[in-house]
Amino acid sequence: MNEFELIAHLTKSLPANRNVLAGAGDDCAVLDLGAPDKLILFKTDAVVEGIHFTRETPPEKIGRKALARCLSDIAAMAGTPVAALVTVGLPEKFEPEFVAKIYDGMNALAEQSGVAIVGGETTTNPGGILISIALLGTVARGKQVLRGGAKTGDAIFVTGELGGSLAGKHLEFEPRLEEARWLAEHFSIHAMIDLSDGLAGDLPHVLKASGAGAELLKDAIPISREAKSQAKRKPAFAAALTDGEDFELLFTVAGSDAVKLLDAWKKKFPKLKLSCIGKIVAGEGIVLRDKTGAQKLNVHGYVHFA
Amino acid sequence: MNEFELIAHLTKSLPANRNVLAGAGDDCAVLDLGAPDKLILFKTDAVVEGIHFTRETPPEKIGRKALARCLSDIAAMAGTPVAALVTVGLPEKFEPEFVAKIYDGMNALAEQSGVAIVGGETTTNPGGILISIALLGTVARGKQVLRGGAKTGDAIFVTGELGGSLAGKHLEFEPRLEEARWLAEHFSIHAMIDLSDGLAGDLPHVLKASGAGAELLKDAIPISREAKSQAKRKPAFAAALTDGEDFELLFTVAGSDAVKLLDAWKKKFPKLKLSCIGKIVAGEGIVLRDKTGAQKLNVHGYVHFA
Repeated sequence: MNEFELIAHLTKSLPANRNVLAGAGDDCAVLDLGAPDKLILFKTDAVVEGIHFTRETPPEKIGRKALARCLSDIAAMAGTPVAALVTVGLPEKFEPEFVAKIYDGMNALAEQSGVAIVGGETTTNPGGILISIALLGTVARGKQVLRGGAKTGDAIFVTGELGGSLAGKHLEFEPRLEEARWLAEHFSIHAMIDLSDGLAGDLPHVLKASGAGAELLKDAIPISREAKSQAKRKPAFAAALTDGEDFELLFTVAGSDAVKLLDAWKKKFPKLKLSCIGKIVAGEGIVLRDKTGAQKLNVHGYVHFA
Repeated sequence: MNEFELIAHLTKSLPANRNVLAGAGDDCAVLDLGAPDKLILFKTDAVVEGIHFTRETPPEKIGRKALARCLSDIAAMAGTPVAALVTVGLPEKFEPEFVAKIYDGMNALAEQSGVAIVGGETTTNPGGILISIALLGTVARGKQVLRGGAKTGDAIFVTGELGGSLAGKHLEFEPRLEEARWLAEHFSIHAMIDLSDGLAGDLPHVLKASGAGAELLKDAIPISREAKSQAKRKPAFAAALTDGEDFELLFTVAGSDAVKLLDAWKKKFPKLKLSCIGKIVAGEGIVLRDKTGAQKLNVHGYVHFA
């Protein structure tokens, strides 16, 4: 058994029950636990020393990031976060002050987001610090936005600017909770995801779940200043497509709603860029179009530049 | 800041909101998310290689144990488990078969318990295998049993037999879900907890939350065969008091209900021992009584033998 076979084994025929409206494979699980007007959103996410942060990362930012990642998943369903449990694995020798500051950063974002921290535990983890957060949220029944609803002809939108997150944004990003709820309240959002693995990594999840393809307009993709300033490391456009941890929203609406949505967005969120980057098409895969023609985007996130 | 000061820092003034009926400090958090007849139970628990299992532990039993520990906490609230998310941290080199079997053991218990596995993730964890499970459950509104409801004069009961769990039971125990729900449906259970840190470690949680003390009858405490057979390692009675991972229920009911409860239990659960081990008294701490007199039990779980 190799690792791909393992993942196939782990995700096929998971135990289910009648409470589950969406399980593994979306930003959050969606459960019906009997509230007449609400569904329950359920998500866990872990950050690990050496992968998502280092010992040099300010501890408040480690805690903030651990919670913010989960909040971004609740946003991607157009939900409202409610309560979190926090598991912190610690090596045998650790600085109590360091751990206390991790919680301080997490608690500050929790307060700001209306999230209760309702328990959890610390446990020994010999290899380093690991923080796993379980987050519960709610969404108005019928207003949850899954990945699989994109339709041919939909306009594809993305918030903010993409690429270069590791320069600092990955520790300080604002989960797009308010924006996502506003979108779901005022428009028929067909599909939504938060960008954690880069546009070229995450758009395929929407396309696969929706049974569709996409055509992107190269010049419309918003490239962050950080991606541009690091162009020696990696071409800025490649960074915008493939860098992880943008934590911006990608969503689709009917093409006929696109202009109205852009106008309303500019009034509601004048400081946050919203870009229409292309459209959903029949078929599969992603085609990248510019004035010189079109090219196919490799599904693994790498683009063949001319 | 030392470790005690850290824990005090972590648990004081955690962010809260109006959905939280019980937060950190009970077996599960209890949330009101708007279901007219139900409350939501929310719990996480982690097992770590080298602490809760070893590389020699059969992997199916590792997965089973990881879920069973969470189920036991849902049982301690008289709840019904609904859905779980599973985070598995893996060292860089691991056997996919080993991980697949961890899931097999977990999924089998999930099926048996009616629990849906609705997602999760695998992540790198350099120090060894870590499994963190987040579990959601429900309880009929008003039927949740907290730790803090014990009253002077209550009879204290414990299911099964105590001590010696590490000989094997810690990998194979049955979470007392059915028993706990039956108890809450048929009797007014004042307080309940599952025994994960030993009777002498967990009863104080009930007493502290309830503002009361306890008097235990030494001869009434049920000692497991494993604890008796390992008496050379540790006196059997000490093992019954202080060995961890019994995962039996400890609960209290009004003294006037005790005989009726014991009779009804024997009819309903003839194969599972139920023992009345003492009573709740005014004051604080635990007194251990036998025919020679009474002695105070040390709050840290160690008893001074005569």
